[in-house]
Amino acid sequence: MRFTPATELTTRYKSLQKRLQQHQLDAALLVQNSDLFYFTGSVQQGFYYLPAEGEPVYLVRKDFGRARMECGLQHVLPLASSKQLFAILREQGIALPQKIAMELDVLPVRQYKHYQKLLAPADIVDASPLVREVRAIKSDYEISIMKDCALIMDKVFQRAKDVIAVGRTDWEVLAELEQYAKGEGHQGLIRFRGFNGEAGFGHLFSGSDGAVPTYSDTPLGGLGPNPAVGQGASYKKIAAGEPIILDLVIAYEGYMVDQTRTFSIGKLPDQLSEAYMAMLKVQEKMSEVAKPGVAWGTVYQQCLQLATDMGYKDHFMGASGAQVSFIGHGIGIELDECPFIARGFDQHPLEENMTFAFEPKVVFPGLGALGVENSWRVAAEGVKRLTYSDETLLEL
Amino acid sequence: MRFTPATELTTRYKSLQKRLQQHQLDAALLVQNSDLFYFTGSVQQGFYYLPAEGEPVYLVRKDFGRARMECGLQHVLPLASSKQLFAILREQGIALPQKIAMELDVLPVRQYKHYQKLLAPADIVDASPLVREVRAIKSDYEISIMKDCALIMDKVFQRAKDVIAVGRTDWEVLAELEQYAKGEGHQGLIRFRGFNGEAGFGHLFSGSDGAVPTYSDTPLGGLGPNPAVGQGASYKKIAAGEPIILDLVIAYEGYMVDQTRTFSIGKLPDQLSEAYMAMLKVQEKMSEVAKPGVAWGTVYQQCLQLATDMGYKDHFMGASGAQVSFIGHGIGIELDECPFIARGFDQHPLEENMTFAFEPKVVFPGLGALGVENSWRVAAEGVKRLTYSDETLLEL
Repeated sequence: MRFTPATELTTRYKSLQKRLQQHQLDAALLVQNSDLFYFTGSVQQGFYYLPAEGEPVYLVRKDFGRARMECGLQHVLPLASSKQLFAILREQGIALPQKIAMELDVLPVRQYKHYQKLLAPADIVDASPLVREVRAIKSDYEISIMKDCALIMDKVFQRAKDVIAVGRTDWEVLAELEQYAKGEGHQGLIRFRGFNGEAGFGHLFSGSDGAVPTYSDTPLGGLGPNPAVGQGASYKKIAAGEPIILDLVIAYEGYMVDQTRTFSIGKLPDQLSEAYMAMLKVQEKMSEVAKPGVAWGTVYQQCLQLATDMGYKDHFMGASGAQVSFIGHGIGIELDECPFIARGFDQHPLEENMTFAFEPKVVFPGLGALGVENSWRVAAEGVKRLTYSDETLLEL
Repeated sequence: MRFTPATELTTRYKSLQKRLQQHQLDAALLVQNSDLFYFTGSVQQGFYYLPAEGEPVYLVRKDFGRARMECGLQHVLPLASSKQLFAILREQGIALPQKIAMELDVLPVRQYKHYQKLLAPADIVDASPLVREVRAIKSDYEISIMKDCALIMDKVFQRAKDVIAVGRTDWEVLAELEQYAKGEGHQGLIRFRGFNGEAGFGHLFSGSDGAVPTYSDTPLGGLGPNPAVGQGASYKKIAAGEPIILDLVIAYEGYMVDQTRTFSIGKLPDQLSEAYMAMLKVQEKMSEVAKPGVAWGTVYQQCLQLATDMGYKDHFMGASGAQVSFIGHGIGIELDECPFIARGFDQHPLEENMTFAFEPKVVFPGLGALGVENSWRVAAEGVKRLTYSDETLLEL
């Protein structure tokens, strides 16, 4: 168990402060679990208050003792009720804000209305673009944890070769791999920022199930166990000669990596194994194009163009009619961080130490899905791998 | 795999319509996954539009085919973008609303602002109290699924007796039980409505770990695997002579039950086994008091009073300083539904076919936690059990 070093917390708040100042905001008040973990090192029922100048304060309702133990900030204070917020800040000699930033991308309306009264006459503006910018650039500390995740990930994919078998269901194999991953350090909880986002350990799809579309903004969907879940692995039994695609998220010490590989039991039809090789080429293209200064959307467009040129227009990133408009997504504490290797992000350049998952996939209705995914770090000279498992089309 | 019957969907929308009319609202527009499942039977990226009079329409962006297959409503229509919403409703001959209800307890501010523009000049008001009222009363269909959940739950608790052992960690035993539960039908995904709520399969705490407080509004907390998760099972090894408390949620076909039992390996000190017996008495008290017409808060107060009278004031529902102000919570599609057997709900009467989990627990810092939990249905004559596993203090 690691506690986020105080030096990390300082770098992080200074990065956010710089942005608060640039936008003429007086303070940020953060309340969401992922942001609290990032800025305090300790997820509690509490408020992280960061003035545009000066030091942050973590005001904690529950559990103060845990916060005091886990949090490397100097100012951690108990709070009986959110109503005391400003009174306590005033006692600390902190001037009250006129423009205060909160996470309006995740904060529910009802709570927002409560805070509007509580913080009046201050104006509440959206902190989330600034917070997401700060969080997108990873420190060496964060990247070292993500490399630890990749080690666990590789063990799980090694194990997958032993447990994928004809006649077993996608569902039971995935459940077995999840248990194994937890034994190797996977923390279980996967955080997803977007509304209605319900991310878990990942997916395993054999054959035609890989081509079933769902509500989620993912290239693959899946039937899921029932209509209440409606995505992910189902009770389909694995057969020989069909693509088996395994897409997993490993989270460890609060951070994640995302990886996909494709297996088969016995040989696949040439059409499918060629499609898999094409996805490796899309990945290679990404690794040539992506570097600091290149727009996220440029990486997307060039990779999409290559997939189209190779004849996969109607299969790439979903079957025709259910295609998604991204090939990669930032990753760290949440599964949907910046950058997005996606359509329309033409003014957003990659920066050094951004981390993202890149997942070129093809879908053939009735046959299944194939593809590859790795998690990457943007280095000065180009992208470097975080995940590293064997990428051959794995015939079992 | 079950599809929600059309007759169910009709009863549900008529119940919400009645409330819309009572509150002089023109329509409800629902977008959250749990509510979409309840009112349409199919979780999609879409909008459930219910006028105060007339029939509901499910407008689906992704995946329309899945919605058409799973949803028992007559009017399921494709939607390319939320901007088309009103145009399509107009084509259906639906008058545009002036007051429209959305789920403001969960809808993020940024999306709310988008809908304010989209729905202008209509006023958006909070649908969630009405939706939660409707959902609190379960049909026979829903209760029959919850009974199926209880069957799976009992199997998992039978299994627990075999896998809890000295020297194994709480973490690994829980992971093994989760895999087993998934094999028996548990759907994995647990839905929690509250902001920052991160509920999973449940908890297993041996000895002192049961008394570690956390951020969550739960009587027990736990150290968790790391500060990013900060609740639930940790890597503590199970020892003889300490209380081992297992609190699980089983979800099946979209519905849940919640159950807790207490185990020990070898005999517990009398102080602890007596405390467990006291929690059974609190449960008995609840089953005597709770019936249609009795306020949720009355049940809470009478049970709290009994626990206090038996000498557990500083241990009941958390250790002193970290106690929660509830003993039970409604359960169904989400883990935090109405009714709340909690302080302050003195004007909210229990109604027939409400379902709730009731979880009297005691916490002794340094020693651990003990308690019992079952899921219950309110029948005309009083409460009836949904979960039924052996309640003796289980010496292994």
